[in-house]
Amino acid sequence: MTVMNKVNVEEQAILAKKAAKILSLLSTEEKNAALLTLADVLDAEYETILTANKEDLENGRKKGYDDAYMDRLTLTKERVEEFAQGLRDVAKLEDPTGIVNSDWTLDNGLNVQKITVPLGVIGMIYEARPNVTVDASGLALKSGNAIVLKGGSSAIHSNKQIVDVIHRGLEQTKIPKEAVQFIASTDREATQQLFTMKKHIDVLIPRGGGSLIQAVVNNATVPVLETGVGNCHIYIDAEADVNKALAILVNAKTDRPAVCNAAETAIIHKDWLDTNKDALTQTLKENNIAVHGDELAVKVIPGAVSAGEDDWANEYLSTDIAIKTVNNVEEAIDHIDAYGTKHSEAIITENKETADTFMKLVDAAALYHNASTRFTDGSALGFGAEIGISTQKLHARGPMGLPALTTIKYMMNGNGQTR
Amino acid sequence: MTVMNKVNVEEQAILAKKAAKILSLLSTEEKNAALLTLADVLDAEYETILTANKEDLENGRKKGYDDAYMDRLTLTKERVEEFAQGLRDVAKLEDPTGIVNSDWTLDNGLNVQKITVPLGVIGMIYEARPNVTVDASGLALKSGNAIVLKGGSSAIHSNKQIVDVIHRGLEQTKIPKEAVQFIASTDREATQQLFTMKKHIDVLIPRGGGSLIQAVVNNATVPVLETGVGNCHIYIDAEADVNKALAILVNAKTDRPAVCNAAETAIIHKDWLDTNKDALTQTLKENNIAVHGDELAVKVIPGAVSAGEDDWANEYLSTDIAIKTVNNVEEAIDHIDAYGTKHSEAIITENKETADTFMKLVDAAALYHNASTRFTDGSALGFGAEIGISTQKLHARGPMGLPALTTIKYMMNGNGQTR
Repeated sequence: MTVMNKVNVEEQAILAKKAAKILSLLSTEEKNAALLTLADVLDAEYETILTANKEDLENGRKKGYDDAYMDRLTLTKERVEEFAQGLRDVAKLEDPTGIVNSDWTLDNGLNVQKITVPLGVIGMIYEARPNVTVDASGLALKSGNAIVLKGGSSAIHSNKQIVDVIHRGLEQTKIPKEAVQFIASTDREATQQLFTMKKHIDVLIPRGGGSLIQAVVNNATVPVLETGVGNCHIYIDAEADVNKALAILVNAKTDRPAVCNAAETAIIHKDWLDTNKDALTQTLKENNIAVHGDELAVKVIPGAVSAGEDDWANEYLSTDIAIKTVNNVEEAIDHIDAYGTKHSEAIITENKETADTFMKLVDAAALYHNASTRFTDGSALGFGAEIGISTQKLHARGPMGLPALTTIKYMMNGNGQTR
Repeated sequence: MTVMNKVNVEEQAILAKKAAKILSLLSTEEKNAALLTLADVLDAEYETILTANKEDLENGRKKGYDDAYMDRLTLTKERVEEFAQGLRDVAKLEDPTGIVNSDWTLDNGLNVQKITVPLGVIGMIYEARPNVTVDASGLALKSGNAIVLKGGSSAIHSNKQIVDVIHRGLEQTKIPKEAVQFIASTDREATQQLFTMKKHIDVLIPRGGGSLIQAVVNNATVPVLETGVGNCHIYIDAEADVNKALAILVNAKTDRPAVCNAAETAIIHKDWLDTNKDALTQTLKENNIAVHGDELAVKVIPGAVSAGEDDWANEYLSTDIAIKTVNNVEEAIDHIDAYGTKHSEAIITENKETADTFMKLVDAAALYHNASTRFTDGSALGFGAEIGISTQKLHARGPMGLPALTTIKYMMNGNGQTR
């Protein structure tokens, strides 16, 4: 019932807010001990999670989800063990809260400290992957935040059981179990309530496809940390080394085509293409990369089909690639300005000056000179764990580790100072 | 004409975006030289600004604006000189861009630098104060950002003339004059276009009353830096020193009642009130502070009227104060949780433990122990200049200086690294 729902979601957010206060007072040791307990309980109760997961898989088969989707949905003993290990890894990371960023005293004697503190309550809205339920909870708790989880309906049984296990685990710790809230309703209205619950929720983090993320960005009045859509480009300059260019192109396109830091378009200087068309064609063929090209690319590369606006604008998330030819780096930058999603952009060139121009003028979280866009990733960069990759400019940009889940407080200590 | 407008506002934003690219390549010295030139041109052309201002003042009189409003609208030679001096002060501040926050090399040799860069294009939406036109332009340009200004209709002639002067000044500098765009339309639709222009505008900053700010927060899909509404509390604990408590209360309430860091409610411990009611009453009377109290406060303080929900929830922005009595610090925190705007909150007590509880558990940008809330201010804290005071938790919290107008880029330099 909708009215019932409304009350429940708000009540859950209020419970999370209260739990966040208690959690914010816990020591790093208490939080770490809790994460280790959760890991042990997940390991011990993995069978109950797999049983619940079977229900989701059965429903998924009935609905005819494709293999990739079913794979993301499928849990095994090993995957649950990875969840538990993930929590143990988060326990080892530095506590991002309670760090004094600066400390100074005004002439009147008023001491000012700028200290990192938890955000409060995080609203996590995500799709089919049940691992987000554990990963996001672990990162939230470690950084002193409560979390309200709203997973996709296709994984609802798995998610619900995982949260039940987390709750049983938290009962053995100093963290109140209300710090992890799971919205069991599959009603769309439940999600929309989260969008405007500014009083109780401090930030929304959507994880999933472009349409989910846009729905949150367009409808939420709660601040959003926008993640994930990566329409990434590899610009191969006239002065690109052919071996580096081809190795990077293949890696960025084929290593994991479905992730956000994969390349979707190669922008190729016409001179380079003219010189290297045979090597390029052979490499693309060997790696089963299907080409959608502009007029010149279609003419030069056998088997290439004509690219349209959709090819430039959207992620393939497959081994398809769009190829755009240009006369200079400025045209490459203009194309990225028009179609990029400010995620990761690479230039391959031996000319340092051209590389500088590209890296200064392209507006994105991560700019690469002679390297693959695949490195835009919290673990690849050594952040330990990530809650998502921000494609926005405010608060956090690029891979977001634990510090992205904190804000600051100015703490002033005086003895009667007035102005 | 509306359609005409639509094209114009978008065209202005596109021009700003292009100018931002050029601006982002300028050196600190070039930006500083431009600010000094602007200051000189403002000084030289102040009379044209005063002439335009007369038109706004005449319209204001016809519309019957009150004295405070007319005062904010009024420009004089001295005020324009202050604008110019403000630009010279901003020229002296550290450039917030191009700072390498961290620099490391992965095992595979890929070098990673995290560097501060301008946000791009700032959309500034503000009300009657023409000083924002100059101040915000100066801060934007110094931090390498273009700015689109949408001022209130009551100051339109002043703002338009100020921007004309800025444009004439910029023509003598390396900064393209298109970096400062002024939306001359008083059409509401022009403002609403800014709300959703994500492609061209990187952040919106509203400056003004609560209803303006809420309109932006509720309708914008462009990320917003929320500023300004301060429903601030002074909690006078059972163990508060009476002299400190009264001095801080009077300062926070009466020094500048119309600003956001002024106190609006005193929360008073019942034991302290019982002991100090005569001193409190006398102090309030001497300072012409009108009291709206809860049941006990009305009983104890002569002349106090009954406070209702509105008194707890809203800013007076006058020398009125609401007084709420409590039995302990927890009740004080609950009241602030219910009605505070996360701006500035103070506790007056000689008990360090009670102060700690308050400062840890109250969720606000600035927490004060034995000092006035009036210090939440960029210049008071030594930030040099501020673009506003953030009451949100993401990106920037509390007084926002130049660093709040930047984001970061990860710049990766490799020699063919793949994953």
